[in-house]
This record gives sequence, C-alpha cells and structure tokens, in this order.
Amino acid sequence: MIRAGILGPTGYSGLELIRLLLRHPEAEIAWLGGRRAERPHIADIWPALRGTLDMRCAVLHEDPLPELDVAFVALPHTTAMSYVPKLLDRGMKVVDISADYRLKDPATYKTWYKTDHTDPENLSRAVYGLPELFREDIPGAELVANPGCYPTAVELALAPLLKNGLADENALTIVDAKSGVSGAGRSPKPNLHFPEANESVTAYRIGEHQHTGEMLQTLERLSRRAPRFLFVPHLIPMDRGILTTCYVPLAKDSVGTTDDLQGTFADFYAGEPFIRVRTDDTVPTTKEVFGTNYCDIAVRVCGGIAVVVACIDNLVKGASGQAVQNMNILFGLPETTGLL
Amino acid sequence: MIRAGILGPTGYSGLELIRLLLRHPEAEIAWLGGRRAERPHIADIWPALRGTLDMRCAVLHEDPLPELDVAFVALPHTTAMSYVPKLLDRGMKVVDISADYRLKDPATYKTWYKTDHTDPENLSRAVYGLPELFREDIPGAELVANPGCYPTAVELALAPLLKNGLADENALTIVDAKSGVSGAGRSPKPNLHFPEANESVTAYRIGEHQHTGEMLQTLERLSRRAPRFLFVPHLIPMDRGILTTCYVPLAKDSVGTTDDLQGTFADFYAGEPFIRVRTDDTVPTTKEVFGTNYCDIAVRVCGGIAVVVACIDNLVKGASGQAVQNMNILFGLPETTGLL
Amino acid sequence: MIRAGILGPTGYSGLELIRLLLRHPEAEIAWLGGRRAERPHIADIWPALRGTLDMRCAVLHEDPLPELDVAFVALPHTTAMSYVPKLLDRGMKVVDISADYRLKDPATYKTWYKTDHTDPENLSRAVYGLPELFREDIPGAELVANPGCYPTAVELALAPLLKNGLADENALTIVDAKSGVSGAGRSPKPNLHFPEANESVTAYRIGEHQHTGEMLQTLERLSRRAPRFLFVPHLIPMDRGILTTCYVPLAKDSVGTTDDLQGTFADFYAGEPFIRVRTDDTVPTTKEVFGTNYCDIAVRVCGGIAVVVACIDNLVKGASGQAVQNMNILFGLPETTGLL
Amino acid sequence: MIRAGILGPTGYSGLELIRLLLRHPEAEIAWLGGRRAERPHIADIWPALRGTLDMRCAVLHEDPLPELDVAFVALPHTTAMSYVPKLLDRGMKVVDISADYRLKDPATYKTWYKTDHTDPENLSRAVYGLPELFREDIPGAELVANPGCYPTAVELALAPLLKNGLADENALTIVDAKSGVSGAGRSPKPNLHFPEANESVTAYRIGEHQHTGEMLQTLERLSRRAPRFLFVPHLIPMDRGILTTCYVPLAKDSVGTTDDLQGTFADFYAGEPFIRVRTDDTVPTTKEVFGTNYCDIAVRVCGGIAVVVACIDNLVKGASGQAVQNMNILFGLPETTGLL
Repeated sequence: MIRAGILGPTGYSGLELIRLLLRHPEAEIAWLGGRRAERPHIADIWPALRGTLDMRCAVLHEDPLPELDVAFVALPHTTAMSYVPKLLDRGMKVVDISADYRLKDPATYKTWYKTDHTDPENLSRAVYGLPELFREDIPGAELVANPGCYPTAVELALAPLLKNGLADENALTIVDAKSGVSGAGRSPKPNLHFPEANESVTAYRIGEHQHTGEMLQTLERLSRRAPRFLFVPHLIPMDRGILTTCYVPLAKDSVGTTDDLQGTFADFYAGEPFIRVRTDDTVPTTKEVFGTNYCDIAVRVCGGIAVVVACIDNLVKGASGQAVQNMNILFGLPETTGLL
Repeated sequence: MIRAGILGPTGYSGLELIRLLLRHPEAEIAWLGGRRAERPHIADIWPALRGTLDMRCAVLHEDPLPELDVAFVALPHTTAMSYVPKLLDRGMKVVDISADYRLKDPATYKTWYKTDHTDPENLSRAVYGLPELFREDIPGAELVANPGCYPTAVELALAPLLKNGLADENALTIVDAKSGVSGAGRSPKPNLHFPEANESVTAYRIGEHQHTGEMLQTLERLSRRAPRFLFVPHLIPMDRGILTTCYVPLAKDSVGTTDDLQGTFADFYAGEPFIRVRTDDTVPTTKEVFGTNYCDIAVRVCGGIAVVVACIDNLVKGASGQAVQNMNILFGLPETTGLL
Repeated sequence: MIRAGILGPTGYSGLELIRLLLRHPEAEIAWLGGRRAERPHIADIWPALRGTLDMRCAVLHEDPLPELDVAFVALPHTTAMSYVPKLLDRGMKVVDISADYRLKDPATYKTWYKTDHTDPENLSRAVYGLPELFREDIPGAELVANPGCYPTAVELALAPLLKNGLADENALTIVDAKSGVSGAGRSPKPNLHFPEANESVTAYRIGEHQHTGEMLQTLERLSRRAPRFLFVPHLIPMDRGILTTCYVPLAKDSVGTTDDLQGTFADFYAGEPFIRVRTDDTVPTTKEVFGTNYCDIAVRVCGGIAVVVACIDNLVKGASGQAVQNMNILFGLPETTGLL
Repeated sequence: MIRAGILGPTGYSGLELIRLLLRHPEAEIAWLGGRRAERPHIADIWPALRGTLDMRCAVLHEDPLPELDVAFVALPHTTAMSYVPKLLDRGMKVVDISADYRLKDPATYKTWYKTDHTDPENLSRAVYGLPELFREDIPGAELVANPGCYPTAVELALAPLLKNGLADENALTIVDAKSGVSGAGRSPKPNLHFPEANESVTAYRIGEHQHTGEMLQTLERLSRRAPRFLFVPHLIPMDRGILTTCYVPLAKDSVGTTDDLQGTFADFYAGEPFIRVRTDDTVPTTKEVFGTNYCDIAVRVCGGIAVVVACIDNLVKGASGQAVQNMNILFGLPETTGLL
C-alpha cells in the first residue's frame, strides 16, 4: 500500500482527495496535516467523513512529518511552497495541487501571483502533471505540479488543434469559461454568499485571471510559439463543474468540417481512458462528468472557427482526481486505478 | 409625500424596503443612515440601485438626524434599540424591523436574545405590527415593532384556529418551517457559503430559535392561555421564501372536515387584501408569493389534526412589505398603497 | 387608460406582462386570450395572480376579439402570425413578443424558423422595437416586433462599437451567451427537468441558434455591411437572466484603453433611462438587473479586443418590459412609465 | 462474480445502480432490460456512462431473459410486478426497487396504489429489505422488496423509539419530510420543470402520500400495535437528498434528556456501518450523506417530544445503495462491499 499524506485536508480539494484515496485499492491515507492548532478530528471538519476516516489533523508547522510515500499538497498557493521543500527533503514524492510549482519561470509566477517565488530550485525540478499531454515527464519525477482546474479543461480542449498545427497562429484564441462556485474555495466571501451567488451569473477577472499564465505556458509548449490568447471566466450558480467554450480560428488551409475535426480529436485522444470525445451531434454537460475524472469534449466548425467545448468536474479531473492519476503514474500503477 | 428614512439600508431588508418605497406613490426616501464611516453611496452597496437612487448613506453615530416623518429601522437587533429612542425623541414615527421591540417583557427579551433590553420604556409603548391580527393597535402608535419573518407566517397560519377556539389547548402545536437563505442575513458565514448551502437541507436551532418567544407571546394573546408550542426551522437552498407547515391538534368537539376549516379560514380573512386562503385542493408554493406582500394559506384536516401551510416572501410580508403596510396604516393611507 | 389585451398569457412572458401592466398607471388589462378551450381563469393558470387579476381567458380561435387599444402577442412563433393580421384589421396597435415580425425578409425567416412566413404583407410594415437603437421608428407604427431576449442584450452591447466604427469589420465577432432556464419556455422537456438542468451547464445550438438571423440583421443595419458573427448560447441553472460576453476585435486604428471605451459607451447611452454603463472596475451580475428593465453593460479592452458584458432580465428587458416600453412610446407616454 | 441484471436502467435509480455495480468488486452488470423497442445503448440514455459501460438495453417484453444471479427491478410500480414472476421462475434472486412487493396485504396495496395487485402469491414470499431493522429475514430470501426512499429514512428514525417502547402509543407521530426533486422521477412534469421547481418549496399529498402505507406497516411491526401517524412530504429545490423531521411524543415515564436519547439511538445502531448517530449538538445536512449509503440521525428532546432528524441520499440508501446492500446479504458478502 502506498502511504499517502495530505497537507491541507480542510478545503474542497482536500475532501475530494480523501474520498478518492479511501476508495483507492493501492493507497491508504496515513496522515493529515493542517494549520489549525487544535489538531481537529477530520470528521469535525467534514461531518460527511464520520465513520469513514478516524484521524486527527496534525499541525503542519509544529508536528513532525511522518514517513510517507507520497504527500499531496492541497494548501493555498504561497503556503504550499513553504512546505514542499521539507517534504522533498524527507524523500517522499510530492503532488502539489496548489499553483506554486506550475509556472517554470519565477518571474511569470510573480506576474500572476503577485509575490516572489520562494523555492525556485524545486520549481525547476517540478514536472507539470497533465498526463494526457505530458505523460512521459511524470514517472520519474519527485515533484508533480498538478494543473489548475481551468487550465486542465482548456489545455485538453486546445491541444489537438495546436499539436496538429490546425490553429491560425496569428489569430486570437478566446476561451470563455464557466465554473461552479466550489472552484473559488471554501472561505466565505460576500460574492459567494448563497443569496448573492445563487440565481446570478457574472464574469470576473476578465483577461486577468491568475490561471492565464499557466495556460499560456502550456499553449506555447504545444505550439512552439507564443500564442495570442484571451481567457474570461464566469461564476455559475452550481457547486461543481467547469465548462469551457474555446473559440479557435483555424489556419486557412486547415479549415475542415466538423466531422473532420471530430475525427482529429478522437484520434488524438484514442486510448485515453479519461478523455471522451463526442463524435455525434451532442454536446456534453457538466452533469455528465460530475464526480468523475473524465474530460468530455465536443467540437464544431463554424465559419473558420473551431468551437471546442470541454467539461470537467473541477474538483476531480480539475484537482484531486488528476492528483491521484499522477500518483498512479508515479508508482507504476495503471493510470485509472481507483478512478473509474 | 411622507418623508421616510432608513436606518440600515445595507441588509436584504434594507434593499427590499428601498425598492418598495421607490415604487410607493405617497412616500419618498429622504435619508439613509448606516454604520460605515466612509458614507458610501447606496449604489456602491447595491449595484442594482444604480440610476435608481442617487443618495449616500449618512453615518448613524456621527451625523445629525434629519427631519423625517417616519424612520424604518433595519438594523440588527440590539443595535436597533440604541437608535430608536433618539428617533422617537425627534418626533418621528418609527417602524422597527429588528426584533428589539416585539417582546413586551424585557425578561423574555433577555431569554431569547441573551442580552438585557436597554430601552424598556419604549418597549412598553411599542405596538406589534401584524395588521391582519392587531390592526386596531397601529393607527395612533409612535413605534411599531414589525413582526419577524417566521412569526408572521406562523401567527397568520394559527390565528383562525386559536381565535375560534378550535385548537386543543392541552395539546402541542408543532411548526416545521422552511426558509430561504436570505432570512439568515447578508453576512457571509461558513454554513451559508454557496457550496455548503446549495444542494443541501438542514434543521437548525431545534426548539430554540429566537423567534419562538415572539410566537409564544402572540399565541397566548390569541388564545388567552399559554400554548404548548414547538418550532423547528430548516434552511432551504433558495434565496427567498418561507413555507411553514403547522400541525395543530383540534379540540375534540371541533374536528370538522377540510371543507369546514377552509371555510373558517376564508371567513376569518375575508376582506384581507394580503391573505389568500386556498379553498380548493391546491397547496401554495413559495414561488407564488415571491416578491409580494401576500400570505397564502392552505389547510387540511388529517385525523384530528389541522395541517396549515402558509407561504410568504420573507423579505416582503416577512419584513419590508409589512413595514410599508404598517406605514400606510400609521399615515392613514389605504393599506395596500404601493404594495400590489 | 390604455385598454390592453394579451394573446398568450400562459407563458412566462405572459405572466411578466400581466405583472407589469397591473402596475402600470396608464394601462389596464382588458382582455386575455389563449388557446385552451375551457376558458380557464387566469388565477388557475398562475396561482400567483389569485386576488390580483380576476379574469378568464377567452378562446383565441373561437371568441370575438374585443375593442382594444393595444394587443400584446405572447404566442409562440408561427402561431403569432396567424392572429396578428386580425388584430391589425381591427385597428388596434400590436406589440408582438414572438419572433414572427422581426426579420424583414421572409426568406431569412424561413432560414431560421424552418417554415414559410404566412403574413409577408404585415412583415414589411412592422418596426423593430429596440428603442435605444431605433426609437424614431416606433411612435407611428401599427405593429412593433419586440426583439428577442438574446438579441436585445447582444445588440445593445455591440451598437456603440458598430455605430462608432470601432469594430474591425473584417474580423469575427463572437458572442458567448448565458441564459437562465425560463428563456426556454414553460413546456416541460427532458433537458429542462429540474434534476437534469440543475447543477449543470451546457452549450446548445452552437452557431445555429434561431436568434442569430435577428442579430445579424441588426448588426448589418448598425454597421452598414454584413458582419462576421458567431453566437453560442449556454443554459445556466437559474430561473432568469441573460449575461452575454461579446468579443469584438477592434479596428487597428481604434484600439484605445478600457477608459476610452467606457467613455464611448457612456456617451452613446447618455440619457437612456434603461441602460447603465459601468465606468469603474466592476462587472454587472444578472442578479443586479433581476426583475428590472435595465441592461447593465461593462466593457474592457484586452489585447485589441473589446470584451463587452451585458446583463438583462430575459423576461423584462428581454421580453415583456421592453414590450411595455414600446407601448409607452406608441401612446406618447414617458418611456419609463410603469417600468421603474 | 455475481451476474447482475437491471430491469429499468433509464431512471435515476437505474443510473445510480449502474454506478454502484460498476464499482462493486464482486458483481458485474451482465444485462440491462428496458421498454424501448429500439434497444438503445445505455450511453445514449446516460451520456455520463460513455466509455464506462458498453451495453445495449434488451427489450423486456420481447427479448429472452438471460441467466443471471440477481435481477434488480427499477421499473415503475405496477410494471414491476408483471416481470418479477418470470424472474423468480428463472431461479434468480430478485431485488425489487419498485413499491410492488413492500406491502404484505394486497388490499393495502390497492388502497395506496389504486390498482389491484396482480402477483399476490409472490407478495407473500417477499421480504422487506431494510437490513438495519429486519436483517435476519434477508439471507435466504428469493425476493427482496427494497424499501421506499421516505420509508427508509422514517423507519430508521423511529425504530429506536418504538422498539424501546419510548413512544407514547396513544399520541400522534408526525413526520415532516423534505425531498430533492430526483425523488419524483425522470419524467418531465409541469411542477418539476426547472423554472417552476427552482427557488420554490411546497408541500404535497398532505397525509395521502403513497408511501404512508409502507411506513404504517413497518411501524406496526416495530411497535406491535397500529400507530397513529401523519406524513407530510415537501419538494425542495435540489437534486438529491431527503431530510425527515420526526415529531414523536414520548411516553410519560420515558421522557429523558437529549443525552439519554442520543445514547439510546447510539446503542440501538451500535455496529451498524451505515447509520451514524450524532451524539453532540450538531444536526446532519443532506449534503453530508450525498452520494453515500449512510443514514445520519440526530435526536433532541423538546418538551416531551422527541425530534428525530434523519438524512439520506434518496437514490443511494433510499434506493439503489440499499438494493446493493441487500444483494450483499443475499450472497453472503460483507454488507458494506462496494458501498463505502
């Protein structure tokens, strides 16, 4: 059994990770560490776990780290990078669900997260854990930077176009994303208060969302040049789920039919257990990926534009499910272990 | 025009009051006073009011009170009673939407609100502003205590039984109430965070809700003896609306049919413009009273029990709409002015 | 008093129209006509109207038409055009909320609605009732085609750019729209069943929505050439509200700052009572226009693109509120009468 | 591996059953049978299952039944009993999720379901599959009647009081239940249309719900006399979850403290893997049992009344999860297999 620890079990990603690991046949939760001095029982933080996981949370900044095979870091960004070095020093594999190790360039990190990166050394060792696109980087890694929720959906949606050279590299790609409220975290805020968020939709951080840098980095890696890219997220009155609608101008000589592109996408993701490409006239809904590690994708051609719709569960494929997928790869397990 | 001021325009009741007064043909909003030192523009607090109300909020504890005909107090309880005496001293009528002047006995106030009442003198002068039951008290009053949201629905549901002596006075009346989340106020709290409150139902303060004292006081007034009463509220994933399901054992010699009771209720509320009694086999929904000052009531007889279902919009009939109704009475206007 | 009739009072637009007319100081509801043979009482169709409107629905295809000053047609498209000629023959003004008289060219109608237009004669006499853009057409009209919900938001969002020649006319404008479920009508359908639509988001009719023709017609009228345009609507788990996010490439020599564009929009809509342009860093939410006839607009410049966010209540400014606004213009009333 | 078939995989219970069986280590889905003549692929009915279950639905009334170890019947009531005899004849175990075999007396069936029972012979052989209360009946059974969703929650909430003789047998027990909309099935209906059900609460079938007979039967079995009982269900705007608030007058000499009753409940359900009794001051929410087979219970004493709050996921413990639990018992597996 893989002995797994979770740093930051009190957020939504933490809970989802616990649920997934409890069901995982080859891993066990050996340790939980948080920032609350009173060492709360996990079932007092998450009553849903009563009777399921009998464990108290150690205090991260006080208690000794245990022997673990893998540590999942579900702490807020900037906090994560203050613990990751210690975990690596102890010889354990680390899957960091925070944003701290996703951007290769510390300057880019500062641009998007408005603070200096305090662990540039490990930053350079981290691999970006989006298996469907960069699987070969993961097996031998010590530190896996688990992609963000929006980036996971967007990068999976755009990769078949970019890798096949179908996108017009001079044109602007626009991504209009819609996310459930759990993506904004568990801390109460005025705009996330139920009577404010319910029965309402809004756009936020137009062109300025902190995940933009991460997406740009991947798009550049896929297309080998700096892409033109605009990302506009929206908050939707539901708990979970991300749907991204991507508008990608096609290269002049690459404009095929919807059928052509569906074929391109289906081929690109052939054999991928967690990517489901629609090759008919249906469009996925976030409900159809709820609670799963799937990314469902549909594509249409409309007047020279590829419209790519991708759906994920932001807490599973967009966070904890993908983290488990990365763990599976790190430990040589079938990638779907515990995830289907 | 009635010059109206609002103390506490930043909560949900405050916003609803503004909306209602803006539409009222005989009243105008002359003043807003809050607790924020920066004197915010009301449209910065409520973007919905941009272009509708061009007014800044005075600072309650610093700025002079203006000349007003009526002041609506939409402050939290305990805060309200620190301002009401000053308003009365200035000779204006006061409609207090908080809980501070509803309970006639300061000791009862302390029991339910866990703090001493600091203005017992005015407490004794206040009238309880539930027009359909106690209309005659209101016209000459200086201070009207506007009923709570739950009490409004519950007292209107039970009054026809109690006033007609139909309830078994030795038996326990049970009220199971369901409320939308706006009833809990505008302050973000963990259990009201969208991803917690959405897609979930729970009971809270079982038998201990602070509105219980107010309901007991009214029930005693209606039935002339202390009733046995249990109140259990529930939080429902919606913005607005209260539905109360009341279970009232009937006196042995009073058990009639559903038809009989429907007739009793219809007669009791005949001519009341805001009470709609169902005399068919339908049951009201909170959606059907959304945004209105109506209280919709259905009644059934089931094995010696009267089941009374009452629906209100918690922010209108349960707060600001009833406050305007009280203002109308205070100023000799038709009771429905601005409310239909 | 304007004597108003409503054809089709049983849908969501019909209910909203009734609510607005009941509150209107210069109009009265004189007649309701529907397709149900049993002549139902309106309060049996809409229990929310009990005690508010005591009227039965006449049978459209059997009962004689009354004398009316204005008839609002809230029937489904294709049904509407079978009644409009009779209404016009009777000399009454007609505001048609359906799609039947919006497209000037019958061939275009057939393209988008898949059926022949049966009343091309009146089609040519109809004016398109979007007052903020085409106010001068309305006063003397006999037949006003009330704009669709999506087109209202989109056309108001794009007009300041197109009329000022700021958009790059060779580039593609993309509109990603999000709508609450009431926009899909009142007929139960599998994908609108609560457990399917709740907690889910999806895109639908990508590039093929029937409102596209209407938007293209207006955009061409505003910019004097056929625009390149892609419209992708999404279904959001809420009752009401439309938020459209419009991505408009700017002409090379017209790329200014966000401040510049905010000024352009504010100037364009200066004096318009129902358009609220944000000139700060906030973005509107659909909740802030809920139940109102407002269209709230924010604009940003992001790398050569104008991102315009517009919010309306789909049943008010997107349907019945705008219909009343058109009625006000037809009868020489102040445009905001009954709508603020 | 247990070869399992599902009759009626197109409803919500069917989907949940598929999900649970796919995860079950000792069972496999060998067959699906429905009523659609076109033999649809299950992934066309439930896109969520694409890539997960590659199987078409046989036509129940045409295709031969396969060899199965167990058949789950998730058909509507009255339809279920037309297939169960054939399944039993083929020698397979049957777990019927419909209501058809729950009521021991055909006359009672007719009372609540308004139709004659067509298979009284098997009715007498069926056992009621509520393991926590009647576990001993299940192991050797051929036909298990899986309890209804409301009855599961209500019977588990009341059993500790009834079996311990704590309830006042002359007094009326009232159950006020709140259910998410999936409990009403997958067929679109006007009152379940999203814009009707959302943002609204209502009571329905007051005192007349068809599950009442089932609850009465169990309560009588637990208390050895006919109980006085009133059941009032409510529809809540959420997908899943039932919360029942039960009001049970206590026998005069049995009124203890909340602590006492918490102890009674904890003792009663000691060792039960799926029942979680709260022994602190918290109250469960439906969110805390979402997607699980748990029943969470809290109890309070208020003036001679026990208030028992029980939460389940209506599709898991209230339907398909409990069906799998029953299968586990039938086949001698640990009861929690595949369910934690």
